[in-house]
Amino acid sequence: MTKSSERVRQILSWYGSDNPGVLNNLARMLNHGTLGGTGKMVILPVDQGFEHGPARSFAPNAPAYDPDYHFQLAIDAGCNAYAAPLGFLEAGAFKFAGQVPTILKLNNSDTLAKMEPCSALTGSVKDALRLGCAAIGFTIYPGSSARNTMYEELRALIEEAKSYGLPTVVWSYPRGSGLAKEGEQAIDVTAYAAQIACQLGAHVVKVKPPKDVVYQEEAKKTFEKYAIPTKTLPERIKHVVQSCFGGKRVVIFSGGEAKGTDAVLEEVRELAAGGAFGSIMGRNAFQRPKAEAIKLLGDIMQIYKNAG
Amino acid sequence: MTKSSERVRQILSWYGSDNPGVLNNLARMLNHGTLGGTGKMVILPVDQGFEHGPARSFAPNAPAYDPDYHFQLAIDAGCNAYAAPLGFLEAGAFKFAGQVPTILKLNNSDTLAKMEPCSALTGSVKDALRLGCAAIGFTIYPGSSARNTMYEELRALIEEAKSYGLPTVVWSYPRGSGLAKEGEQAIDVTAYAAQIACQLGAHVVKVKPPKDVVYQEEAKKTFEKYAIPTKTLPERIKHVVQSCFGGKRVVIFSGGEAKGTDAVLEEVRELAAGGAFGSIMGRNAFQRPKAEAIKLLGDIMQIYKNAG
Amino acid sequence: MTKSSERVRQILSWYGSDNPGVLNNLARMLNHGTLGGTGKMVILPVDQGFEHGPARSFAPNAPAYDPDYHFQLAIDAGCNAYAAPLGFLEAGAFKFAGQVPTILKLNNSDTLAKMEPCSALTGSVKDALRLGCAAIGFTIYPGSSARNTMYEELRALIEEAKSYGLPTVVWSYPRGSGLAKEGEQAIDVTAYAAQIACQLGAHVVKVKPPKDVVYQEEAKKTFEKYAIPTKTLPERIKHVVQSCFGGKRVVIFSGGEAKGTDAVLEEVRELAAGGAFGSIMGRNAFQRPKAEAIKLLGDIMQIYKNAG
Amino acid sequence: MTKSSERVRQILSWYGSDNPGVLNNLARMLNHGTLGGTGKMVILPVDQGFEHGPARSFAPNAPAYDPDYHFQLAIDAGCNAYAAPLGFLEAGAFKFAGQVPTILKLNNSDTLAKMEPCSALTGSVKDALRLGCAAIGFTIYPGSSARNTMYEELRALIEEAKSYGLPTVVWSYPRGSGLAKEGEQAIDVTAYAAQIACQLGAHVVKVKPPKDVVYQEEAKKTFEKYAIPTKTLPERIKHVVQSCFGGKRVVIFSGGEAKGTDAVLEEVRELAAGGAFGSIMGRNAFQRPKAEAIKLLGDIMQIYKNAG
Amino acid sequence: MTKSSERVRQILSWYGSDNPGVLNNLARMLNHGTLGGTGKMVILPVDQGFEHGPARSFAPNAPAYDPDYHFQLAIDAGCNAYAAPLGFLEAGAFKFAGQVPTILKLNNSDTLAKMEPCSALTGSVKDALRLGCAAIGFTIYPGSSARNTMYEELRALIEEAKSYGLPTVVWSYPRGSGLAKEGEQAIDVTAYAAQIACQLGAHVVKVKPPKDVVYQEEAKKTFEKYAIPTKTLPERIKHVVQSCFGGKRVVIFSGGEAKGTDAVLEEVRELAAGGAFGSIMGRNAFQRPKAEAIKLLGDIMQIYKNAG
Repeated sequence: MTKSSERVRQILSWYGSDNPGVLNNLARMLNHGTLGGTGKMVILPVDQGFEHGPARSFAPNAPAYDPDYHFQLAIDAGCNAYAAPLGFLEAGAFKFAGQVPTILKLNNSDTLAKMEPCSALTGSVKDALRLGCAAIGFTIYPGSSARNTMYEELRALIEEAKSYGLPTVVWSYPRGSGLAKEGEQAIDVTAYAAQIACQLGAHVVKVKPPKDVVYQEEAKKTFEKYAIPTKTLPERIKHVVQSCFGGKRVVIFSGGEAKGTDAVLEEVRELAAGGAFGSIMGRNAFQRPKAEAIKLLGDIMQIYKNAG
Repeated sequence: MTKSSERVRQILSWYGSDNPGVLNNLARMLNHGTLGGTGKMVILPVDQGFEHGPARSFAPNAPAYDPDYHFQLAIDAGCNAYAAPLGFLEAGAFKFAGQVPTILKLNNSDTLAKMEPCSALTGSVKDALRLGCAAIGFTIYPGSSARNTMYEELRALIEEAKSYGLPTVVWSYPRGSGLAKEGEQAIDVTAYAAQIACQLGAHVVKVKPPKDVVYQEEAKKTFEKYAIPTKTLPERIKHVVQSCFGGKRVVIFSGGEAKGTDAVLEEVRELAAGGAFGSIMGRNAFQRPKAEAIKLLGDIMQIYKNAG
Repeated sequence: MTKSSERVRQILSWYGSDNPGVLNNLARMLNHGTLGGTGKMVILPVDQGFEHGPARSFAPNAPAYDPDYHFQLAIDAGCNAYAAPLGFLEAGAFKFAGQVPTILKLNNSDTLAKMEPCSALTGSVKDALRLGCAAIGFTIYPGSSARNTMYEELRALIEEAKSYGLPTVVWSYPRGSGLAKEGEQAIDVTAYAAQIACQLGAHVVKVKPPKDVVYQEEAKKTFEKYAIPTKTLPERIKHVVQSCFGGKRVVIFSGGEAKGTDAVLEEVRELAAGGAFGSIMGRNAFQRPKAEAIKLLGDIMQIYKNAG
Repeated sequence: MTKSSERVRQILSWYGSDNPGVLNNLARMLNHGTLGGTGKMVILPVDQGFEHGPARSFAPNAPAYDPDYHFQLAIDAGCNAYAAPLGFLEAGAFKFAGQVPTILKLNNSDTLAKMEPCSALTGSVKDALRLGCAAIGFTIYPGSSARNTMYEELRALIEEAKSYGLPTVVWSYPRGSGLAKEGEQAIDVTAYAAQIACQLGAHVVKVKPPKDVVYQEEAKKTFEKYAIPTKTLPERIKHVVQSCFGGKRVVIFSGGEAKGTDAVLEEVRELAAGGAFGSIMGRNAFQRPKAEAIKLLGDIMQIYKNAG
Repeated sequence: MTKSSERVRQILSWYGSDNPGVLNNLARMLNHGTLGGTGKMVILPVDQGFEHGPARSFAPNAPAYDPDYHFQLAIDAGCNAYAAPLGFLEAGAFKFAGQVPTILKLNNSDTLAKMEPCSALTGSVKDALRLGCAAIGFTIYPGSSARNTMYEELRALIEEAKSYGLPTVVWSYPRGSGLAKEGEQAIDVTAYAAQIACQLGAHVVKVKPPKDVVYQEEAKKTFEKYAIPTKTLPERIKHVVQSCFGGKRVVIFSGGEAKGTDAVLEEVRELAAGGAFGSIMGRNAFQRPKAEAIKLLGDIMQIYKNAG
């Protein structure tokens, strides 16, 4: 809490309609860890055990089967926060109390069922308070025909969370019967998904780095007419940031599938160049041996620091 | 309550975010019966009357039509706990108060209806308190398109049960339109189902002993790349135990269909060798004549004791 | 839970209108510790820090300032249960979960204020569940003009506690503007106070050993007319036990002020001879050095065992 | 949140029955500011505007009429936390969000009315959450005949606050018709008042430094018999700390009336020597010119640091 | 509402912890009428029918018996708001909807009963919403032994009102058994009463113009030591304004008993010179013939405008 800075205060000023409790918890995350006070964030998310299954998630680095591992990784790497579903947070919240801000992911989805994308509620706002979390997290799938269920659940949860002083981090992943595979990471769709999250009241938005594809017919016309540049990743990131209320909502980007260190760092450099507020880095962190992961996360934080 | 041991205290320490009431009830089960204090558990479950019908369940051993029979069997055999739906527990809870910890199974399914797998709520947390239970039980069917209904019911019940100091035992059975028959007991799917239960907040997880099949395409790649051994049952059990938070959640295994005594004992030996925390043994117990059942359960307990 | 016996089942049968949850928790206390299964109880109560102040309570044996001390003493001495106010129970409930049944004393009084005797509510039934207690405890002061406040609070708490499966232990201490000092431990008044507790729904009653005084004018006539013997302590205990529903409610007796070992044991011998169900022994236990206390409590238990 | 240490973790371990949310907020205070991580605390409390009136409180240092002043003072001086009634906290909570942990004092008393001491509820637990506080604060007056009202309000507030992950700081001031003036700061009464707060469930207790007087007749006998030393302030502090669960509850001491710098520092040296966990320093801080106050608070913190 | 100005925005900035709904309603009053946008307020309050009886209130100007009269007076005179109890507001709220901000006085006292001062709740927050009010009003009597009742009612009402976006105006009148008559308008007591209202969360405070008396012994010492000037009314007003959070809470002054026009204007000039935010002018307005009242209120507003 000691590193509050002009930049953090500026970011908080964008959320002026919220109560001081919400701002305080946003500040807890913005002021914690290596990037504390810079206005940038690197978050460790570990929901893959639920979303992809244990072996796919943790076999590459077997100590990661243990929930304590991720708390300690987030602490040792100096992350701003650690996000996970109920089970993983409960397993360590007591032992690691006060050592790293946590985000309780309130809905999750497995890959066993065949159904239109729609995560199940797997935690509550009261759970987040009980576990000492700094925020709740929630996934929406714009493009799913179950959209309304998710948007309406999110709306109610944000309202409840705010009343207790908790901000909300929204994972916005375009997916579902309304979108072909190539649309899911298209720049127009990604920016649209980010905007939807902001309009729903998200305090922090998380999307995937978009690709150089414009998917929607109507969007194509606009992108052409106004010559919105989308060729480079920094250009696309800039458009996503702008789409988040002209830069007045914190938007961070996922690291995606595990890849080589150079590839990760190069992508982060481009994210930072485009004005990203940070990264949420899961598999590329916890699937590496711990020392390597800490080195990588440190390098990523340095890139964001330099980009300040 | 007298047999608390180092091992039991170690197990309880994994649940540090829970209140002392939850720990106390976990301890009630872990400290009761023949295996009290060993950290191992053998539970008698009798939900087959509901799940399979009375004749299929009780005709092989007619005294088992009477609910008193099962209380007495669990007591005489020295089981850690006895689990059943509301009706069976209510029939004996008064008479046998204080003699064996009980688990109220809060949802159950019959085999008369044709529908996507989704059990009906048949009891409440308040019922469990009123009946003096040490835990609630709940079944989820990962793979069912009714997944969200079940996960969300479970989430709410766990939250309520915790508030009153009750832990939760989750039966996690992959089943439904998302899975072909051969997937239901595949090692990847079983480990995934166990992980889901843990992430949802289960204190004790119950799955079936997995078979040497890897079902999901993405999982196959991982099992091959990281050479996860699945050939023997102990190897597969080890993987399931690891998938339950690196061994920090209690996971026990069902005995499955009735079979010969030697087959049962051989399977238990392999479960124990793989690091299972115990067995939940229904049909193989109550469908045998009582003396035989007590002998079998005693032999099973001895195997777990030796494996300590 | 393993020592349930004919005698325990007989005692439980007196509480047939209660649900199995209440019986189960009564059984938890009756079946625990050295006296488990005998139908007798020795309980360690430590509310003196609140009621008399810390120095008066703990200076005689300084380790007793630490709340852990009392949990460990109750465990090591093999007591049936340990009773204390919220603060003391919270301090150890997590660490000692599952090792000894606990009773949360829900009201307490200090000796700083000048007021008609009426304890303050200092805990809730929900607290008792959260802390894994086997019962709630409550003090009433028959003789106080604030009687109705206490009786009505107790009534509501018993109703609530029962609904969650918790029994109630009532400390019944005649005191207040309606009684002169010599009336407080008179045999007629003590028996009356015990009867009131039973009528209010107490499952276990705790009174002080009565003296050979009959205090109330109307009572004197009866005691004389029917020649109720009150000369010896066993005679008086017998009358109190009889006054507790003809012996069908568990009534136990306090040890009172600290005194010599021989005096304590002699008194317990008389209590046991009179048919007492047991003792609740605070200052005479925790104000002695630990080894001495364990020896004394062991000797007391042996007396009750022999009296069985 | 970055300075968590072995000592902080040890302190948190004393509160094992609480949920991780409560521990997290305790850690927020213990890890913040100059003393962060030492296990010692210096808190700035400013409730004197309500308790004594504005001129008496703020005329000595006129900038202190402005609520912003106190937030900034607590931040600049590196205090662990800032405590105040609703109005003062609301006036700055938004502007200073995330810069210093705050404690909302939920009851307050003015000196205009003539009545048995009993503060009015002036805020709620929900207010504390809305304002982003790390704890609630509450004053009890042991010795008042309105004791039960206050204890019962506190009991309910602690239960509610815990459920949302908030710890409770209790100001325990013996006062009222049960005590003569000389009893209010007597060593026996102060230790008793501290014990009561702990038994009621306080996480942090605040009392006045006791004087060398033993007030209660019964206590006198004990202090003499067991030769409890009370001549020096460190000896008396040691007794108070011991009376707070053998040192397992955080107890801090008020600075009292404004006095000279040397007198303040000398007293703090004695508090520290006696094992105090810290000071709560109001008038002696905010009634000095700001630079002088920061210097004084810094010197105080240094004393506690050295005493570690 | 169109006249929002730098000054209004500055005033709103002092209430940063409140939600935009509360700010919006504060702005409705600050931006309305002749003084709209100046940061000054003149409010018409008509609770005298309830507080003093109808004849004493309305006989001097008979049209004032009609509730419509007061709405129209407030509108025609260009007041910032009109405050009254439920009955008077209900009588005109429909007819005059949208023409002047209204304040529902939620508690009122008559002069028929003899009791320690404590107003009765005579309306609800829901009533205020239903009637389209811009704020709720509430009277407290510091000095009354019924203080806690009033403070606690106010606390709860403010919390409820805020949640619906309504600010609170507090009438703070020292009165009751704790104060002699001469204390009620003493400068120290008035400033204290204003401070209490602010600490309780009032957005706007209303007190009587204080007299040159210092009433409390302890306060006398402070006023002398720090040479707080109290001789002239502007000096005293300055002290009250400062006592309202260093000038960061809106404090307005009552006109008091009916008096001559020159006396009224002279007093207002002194209020304005001392930094008052405005006047709340009842009897001196509605007990005059309407034209005269409008002229007087206009002159008052001009004085505040010039003082800007």
